[in-house]
Amino acid sequence: METPTEVSRTKAFGCAITQYAYTSPALGGTKATFSVITPPPEAGGGGAPLPALYWLSGLTCTDQNFITKAGAAAHAAAARLIIVAPDTSPRGAGAPGEEDGWDFGTGAGFYVDAVTPGFGAYQMETYVTVELPAAVAAAVAARGGGVALDGTRRSVAGHSMGGHGALTLALRHPRLYASASAFSPVAHPTACPWGVKAFTGYLGGDAAAAAGWADHDATELMGARGKPLYPSTPIRVEQGAADQFWADGQLRGDEFVDACTAAGQPVEWHLREGYDHSYHFIATFLGEHVALHAAALAAAAEKKGGE
Amino acid sequence: METPTEVSRTKAFGCAITQYAYTSPALGGTKATFSVITPPPEAGGGGAPLPALYWLSGLTCTDQNFITKAGAAAHAAAARLIIVAPDTSPRGAGAPGEEDGWDFGTGAGFYVDAVTPGFGAYQMETYVTVELPAAVAAAVAARGGGVALDGTRRSVAGHSMGGHGALTLALRHPRLYASASAFSPVAHPTACPWGVKAFTGYLGGDAAAAAGWADHDATELMGARGKPLYPSTPIRVEQGAADQFWADGQLRGDEFVDACTAAGQPVEWHLREGYDHSYHFIATFLGEHVALHAAALAAAAEKKGGE
Repeated sequence: METPTEVSRTKAFGCAITQYAYTSPALGGTKATFSVITPPPEAGGGGAPLPALYWLSGLTCTDQNFITKAGAAAHAAAARLIIVAPDTSPRGAGAPGEEDGWDFGTGAGFYVDAVTPGFGAYQMETYVTVELPAAVAAAVAARGGGVALDGTRRSVAGHSMGGHGALTLALRHPRLYASASAFSPVAHPTACPWGVKAFTGYLGGDAAAAAGWADHDATELMGARGKPLYPSTPIRVEQGAADQFWADGQLRGDEFVDACTAAGQPVEWHLREGYDHSYHFIATFLGEHVALHAAALAAAAEKKGGE
Repeated sequence: METPTEVSRTKAFGCAITQYAYTSPALGGTKATFSVITPPPEAGGGGAPLPALYWLSGLTCTDQNFITKAGAAAHAAAARLIIVAPDTSPRGAGAPGEEDGWDFGTGAGFYVDAVTPGFGAYQMETYVTVELPAAVAAAVAARGGGVALDGTRRSVAGHSMGGHGALTLALRHPRLYASASAFSPVAHPTACPWGVKAFTGYLGGDAAAAAGWADHDATELMGARGKPLYPSTPIRVEQGAADQFWADGQLRGDEFVDACTAAGQPVEWHLREGYDHSYHFIATFLGEHVALHAAALAAAAEKKGGE
């Protein structure tokens, strides 16, 4: 894999925000773009390597929506962690119908590895869990600037489709993430129109294929597991009560929370009066989520140190 | 003037963010859109009417750039003031060449009252200083919700072209604003390409007209005044040292600051290493600006109370 090259750089709340691009093998050789928020180096230098929080965005987003609208750099600086924001699908992969709708194909990769014909570039699960961390490590190392990445400590968060991504990837790869959180997640995709459309397109729509959909559905995964993920893996779900997609039944975070409760998995659930599906909602509560991840990542460092 | 109607509403950091539209007489009968951030009502109700900070945006912006990217609601909630974000020009006015470039016409009204043929709708100074405050008063009153506007206390801030707007409107209407601040302002427009193009188009390009340009140039206005605006009117200017437009000589905030110093006008000047022209820069330092305005507006209330 080539080392990602810097596309742009800006500064916010003392952090560097750097956008990178590289040719992604996982995404079928398409050009993958991602952004990284790195806190300033510690005064005097020699700071410890920092853990990373991966942010997975929702339908139609690129790496930039979260970067420009969430106010994340202030929290990255305060918590001293790196934040990584990938794109939401391959771009220009040429898959069948990828440009026909905003809820499937381009900008709508759903964080699964597609198995349907023509979707070989749609390997977003492998991209996010395997290739992107390596790309981030290479990019941060190449950049230098007194900030190093601790590639062994990661957490994951996301919004809407990306909330689905955060919860399912944490459930499917529990050793990869110290904590998981979601805003307005598509938490029961096999039971909502967005999920059924995406899973039909990426995983296949016949009866045999559909039987495997549950492996990519946070509510079904937790129900099938039937026991806590790990006692030390905090999960938090935030939902706006004035969110139209919540009213429409696309999100269903409460059903995931019920599955957690039934399985004995600790989960924080916050239904927020008056908040909608927008980044205004995310910006309002992102600081609390980052604090949760920072605490879990600090605990992971202590555990590692004690082993 | 008709009462503005609500276009959309969202919530951030406890504040309501409401977008309004109405047919604007000042802007030639075009549809004017603006957004208002109102803090939540005080617990128990009966809170005092709140002052307003007017935010003037830069070239190509609508009312939404500041609303979605600056993180302003957190500061409005903390300081308990209303923030008003107007558009940057009339839309669809049909003025000659208004769609030909991003730095003139639509999205580029420059906060002046145009006098050139065909630009009768480009009355942004009258719009911002006279009509918009009345529209905001009507909108906030119609909305209710336990938050009232104190229409007698206003401050003004802005970015780039809007920084020019904030500084010149404060200098031209000193009794209207308790304080003024600017990020990356076009602070000496008669001496930079953006300003010369805009003033030629809106104010006229012959020698007689150009002699009047200085009346809309913050550096020239301060120089001509030659004495402090008022001792109690704080001014702050923030500039990113990595801003390409700063390097290109479009902004020249230092020349405005020099004029202030020569005139005995107190001014805070901050040149910020590594920051560029983007909303990342604004978001980083907006809290400090809002705090300055809140203090000046509080002092204005005390003065009013003592009269």
